[in-house]
Amino acid sequence: MTQKTAVHPAGHAAAPAKFSHGVRKGNILQVAGQVGFLPVEPGQEPVVAGPTLREQTRQTLANVKAVLEAGGASLEDVVMLRVYLTDTAHFAEMNEVYDEFFADLKEAPAARTTVYVGLPDGLLVEIDALAVLD
Amino acid sequence: MTQKTAVHPAGHAAAPAKFSHGVRKGNILQVAGQVGFLPVEPGQEPVVAGPTLREQTRQTLANVKAVLEAGGASLEDVVMLRVYLTDTAHFAEMNEVYDEFFADLKEAPAARTTVYVGLPDGLLVEIDALAVLD
Amino acid sequence: MTQKTAVHPAGHAAAPAKFSHGVRKGNILQVAGQVGFLPVEPGQEPVVAGPTLREQTRQTLANVKAVLEAGGASLEDVVMLRVYLTDTAHFAEMNEVYDEFFADLKEAPAARTTVYVGLPDGLLVEIDALAVLD
Repeated sequence: MTQKTAVHPAGHAAAPAKFSHGVRKGNILQVAGQVGFLPVEPGQEPVVAGPTLREQTRQTLANVKAVLEAGGASLEDVVMLRVYLTDTAHFAEMNEVYDEFFADLKEAPAARTTVYVGLPDGLLVEIDALAVLD
Repeated sequence: MTQKTAVHPAGHAAAPAKFSHGVRKGNILQVAGQVGFLPVEPGQEPVVAGPTLREQTRQTLANVKAVLEAGGASLEDVVMLRVYLTDTAHFAEMNEVYDEFFADLKEAPAARTTVYVGLPDGLLVEIDALAVLD
Repeated sequence: MTQKTAVHPAGHAAAPAKFSHGVRKGNILQVAGQVGFLPVEPGQEPVVAGPTLREQTRQTLANVKAVLEAGGASLEDVVMLRVYLTDTAHFAEMNEVYDEFFADLKEAPAARTTVYVGLPDGLLVEIDALAVLD
């Protein structure tokens, strides 16, 4: 039997329903949709990093990274990132932050899909990730 | 060679195009996007469980479960659920139904991403799932 | 250590950010979101196959296939296709093109999820794929 393990980074608020911020089974680590919430103390409500796309994208990617690392993986292991934006006009700026964030990547970059959806009020970006571990 | 197998639960209507309700290859079982269609007899057209989010979410999750079980897996094996809603105001109620549905889960809950999209007329929720088998 | 390899088909323009058109790690090949761009010479800007859903769906699926093949896989290995359309009225016509494209498939068809989102101006369809290799 292959164990399935929930991944919960220290600074992540409790999930608003019965799901895990990340889950690992065998060599697969799936990161749930992350948004721009700042790290919180246990029991605190999450707060968004700021109103701008830049602030939220940076924090969202940092949160993806936090889940990966709490699950024993790293950005290098990611094979897919799904980027959800709310406005096509945000694409170029999201890419700038994205490229800065992944500037030091040694392995091949992950694949990516970007689509434009609705998100809860005040959120401009959501990102999830699929990692395949060694 | 690893066999790829289509998964078609007994009560599922024929897919409207050349895709499978679920497909298993090796230890991966991918469940196609499920909506709130009630089980039908072969040849019948599918009918939605009801007009409300609650009815549709329950049936959608039951349909995800039916595909998993027809493919030799269970809810315990799911690592990711993608929830598509049409209205951010539906988030809290979807979570209520979701938590009831997964109340007896023994393994770590799956990761999840929820985004807000357009769906065909009358449909309020669509959910797909990725399972990793033992 | 399992190698992670970027997949870049010959006719694909450079990605607009630090991501790969496809990435393979172990037996997983993830195809990034493809749109209806025609093949280009290196350094050229991509051009959409045409304004219609039919033209774009055909080219998008051809681009998915090109990434799969450049990564050592084929359409037969795909377990999931995610189809993003911009208009629910396009579903039937997309399915026609889809069924023509997959007419010769020998293995079980992939699972599929179709949702309706926003895409950049002029784009009517985007598709990504997950393949599990033998």
